[in-house]
Amino acid sequence: MDFDALFNEQLDALKSDGNYRYFAELERKCGKFPKAANHADDGVRDVTVWCSNDYLGMGQHPKVIDAMKEAVERTGTGAGGTRNISGTNHDHLLLEAELADLHGKEAALIFTSGYVSNWASLSTLGSRLENCVILSDAGNHASMIEGIRHSKAKKVIWRHNDVADLEEKLAAIPADHPKIVAFESVYSMDGDIAPIEAILDVAEKYGAMTYIDEVHAVGMYGKRGGGVSEELGLAHRITLIEGTLGKAFGCVGGYITGSAALCDFIRSFASGFIFTTALPPAVAAAARVSIAHLKESQFERAGQRRQVAKLRAMLDAQGIPHMPNDSHIVPVMIGDPVKTKMLADYLMDEWNIYVQPINYPTVPKGTERLRFTPSPLHTDEDIAYLVSALTVLWKQCAIAHQVA
Amino acid sequence: MDFDALFNEQLDALKSDGNYRYFAELERKCGKFPKAANHADDGVRDVTVWCSNDYLGMGQHPKVIDAMKEAVERTGTGAGGTRNISGTNHDHLLLEAELADLHGKEAALIFTSGYVSNWASLSTLGSRLENCVILSDAGNHASMIEGIRHSKAKKVIWRHNDVADLEEKLAAIPADHPKIVAFESVYSMDGDIAPIEAILDVAEKYGAMTYIDEVHAVGMYGKRGGGVSEELGLAHRITLIEGTLGKAFGCVGGYITGSAALCDFIRSFASGFIFTTALPPAVAAAARVSIAHLKESQFERAGQRRQVAKLRAMLDAQGIPHMPNDSHIVPVMIGDPVKTKMLADYLMDEWNIYVQPINYPTVPKGTERLRFTPSPLHTDEDIAYLVSALTVLWKQCAIAHQVA
Repeated sequence: MDFDALFNEQLDALKSDGNYRYFAELERKCGKFPKAANHADDGVRDVTVWCSNDYLGMGQHPKVIDAMKEAVERTGTGAGGTRNISGTNHDHLLLEAELADLHGKEAALIFTSGYVSNWASLSTLGSRLENCVILSDAGNHASMIEGIRHSKAKKVIWRHNDVADLEEKLAAIPADHPKIVAFESVYSMDGDIAPIEAILDVAEKYGAMTYIDEVHAVGMYGKRGGGVSEELGLAHRITLIEGTLGKAFGCVGGYITGSAALCDFIRSFASGFIFTTALPPAVAAAARVSIAHLKESQFERAGQRRQVAKLRAMLDAQGIPHMPNDSHIVPVMIGDPVKTKMLADYLMDEWNIYVQPINYPTVPKGTERLRFTPSPLHTDEDIAYLVSALTVLWKQCAIAHQVA
Repeated sequence: MDFDALFNEQLDALKSDGNYRYFAELERKCGKFPKAANHADDGVRDVTVWCSNDYLGMGQHPKVIDAMKEAVERTGTGAGGTRNISGTNHDHLLLEAELADLHGKEAALIFTSGYVSNWASLSTLGSRLENCVILSDAGNHASMIEGIRHSKAKKVIWRHNDVADLEEKLAAIPADHPKIVAFESVYSMDGDIAPIEAILDVAEKYGAMTYIDEVHAVGMYGKRGGGVSEELGLAHRITLIEGTLGKAFGCVGGYITGSAALCDFIRSFASGFIFTTALPPAVAAAARVSIAHLKESQFERAGQRRQVAKLRAMLDAQGIPHMPNDSHIVPVMIGDPVKTKMLADYLMDEWNIYVQPINYPTVPKGTERLRFTPSPLHTDEDIAYLVSALTVLWKQCAIAHQVA
């Protein structure tokens, strides 16, 4: 059987739909963020990255870099095994204590990625709690969807951020069935924020456990970077807070925090936690320093808010439409994968501005977009330059005019 | 609903079965491998680690450490995004080229872990190839099992390493259904090696794609560390070779290699590849140096074989039973979780020897064991000391006598 032909057939379909993905090949350069070198067929040149999830530039913070180098020198490059079989390092436990403290929880558990933390935790909870029903916000991330699906628990999808719909669905489930309400705080592609307090009110009313994904919020919201749940003073009411070390904290890895029994339960039963090599101790050490820094420092968060507001105001001044939301994410909707890619290509080729076209399956078809994530390290000049480029495009391109 | 009570109930059951897991808290120390500091309630002391999957000690090789430090200094601590959204770094592509070359394939694709590479690849292949049937060796790793299950493809389990059984099952599937024969080269817990050539013969006869997991073999088998498939000159006949950067290469992460179309297919459709932050460029850089070193150097492989043979001979001389196999893994069967833990505790407490008790679900109940993995850095004295400790235990303990 010609397997390559089968693969190419599906790849060709992606291409003809405009959904085939071309990765930009970057070279991040310490101290230069958000600038990076872009490797293309016609050579290498410096670009400004406008779509990184290293939201605060902590991946190039001197303290974080030093912590990682120190730990590599001290412990080496890898953990040496799974957490159970020689892979648990002192640095992992220090990081877990730091994370538990960040969210005011008894315990924390780290995973190789945020994807795995969601997938492993939800699949374990859903499969091991008898008669469990998982109530999942319609906008939840792929990692949560796959975890719920893998659990084979009953899944009930509630309308995105719609608490009345959630309540209706909670009320319809027998009282003695364990219920998990799973949602995010900041949704990554629209940048909208969940009505957390109202969700907790109805979840508590029906005795449901609450599971919040704060990956696009930790480090950036709350006085200590504990996420939107900290900012609103609600963390203590949430059963499980999931987060990442790979975005605002600038490293890689995921985690959950919650009661000691909850974390021990996932630790003891989750296949995706048990059967995998532990994170390098050096990653754990770097992440811990990043978290500790952002617990104290308001500088990065304040800078991010300032630059996000500046970008929005300048887009508004030029009449360039962007989705309104209360977060740091600035989506500019285009609504067609081919046009979105064409605009992104123009920006890269003509302006040295890199913003990845966002297409299906990351967003629903028809909602393709450019998604800008201003950091505290994007200067006022960077913002003015971006907006002038977009203004030119919006004026010149028939494509863009249709959108505006 | 009292969720903690539900969690504790299941944790208590684990404890009463002897299957509850206590992680040893280690501090790896550069240049000291296989020694490490062990943190316990009664203090910190140096132990010899006998169960690491950093099989060749490459996680502390000066070249690998220097590569990681250099890349952290150059690029920072994280990748900055998913592979699609600003996270693809030049170091990732260099690593993928190195891996494709290692296995003589057109292309390679890296993942955040070996677990994810198996899970994501098998779930994507199984779900996207119409009428796909996956023929899975009964001994396959949890990550493969979960990937196959997640794909919802038809799954046929063949008896472990039994090619006649595989052929019978292949013959029963309609000729026009895509078939994937999934197996490992070295099975981690028994250390036995698959009859790869015979498996390929029947897979080819029935037009099946072949999927081999070489995570316990890459770096250690073959003249360039390409695994058992290289050692036997069979790599070119295998459709997909999966491996890890986290064991013999001493870092973290997983990968697949195969045709360009195959890798592009997984790249384009696998949720577990798409929706996750890329590996830190510094991890990619360190792994690449480790792989390149083991392509040239025979020193580590020769040293490992010598020390494995030495341990086996000395165990034989003392009449301590161990499972025979052709690999570097030396399992000493105990057959009971409580006894296995007791022996491991004795070794740790009285002899400063750390070997993790291996229990369910890593191995089937009733086959609990101690699993020793001698490295080139375990000295002759380390081996003599281990065998003298085991000899004393085997003579003193009623427990051990029953086993012997």
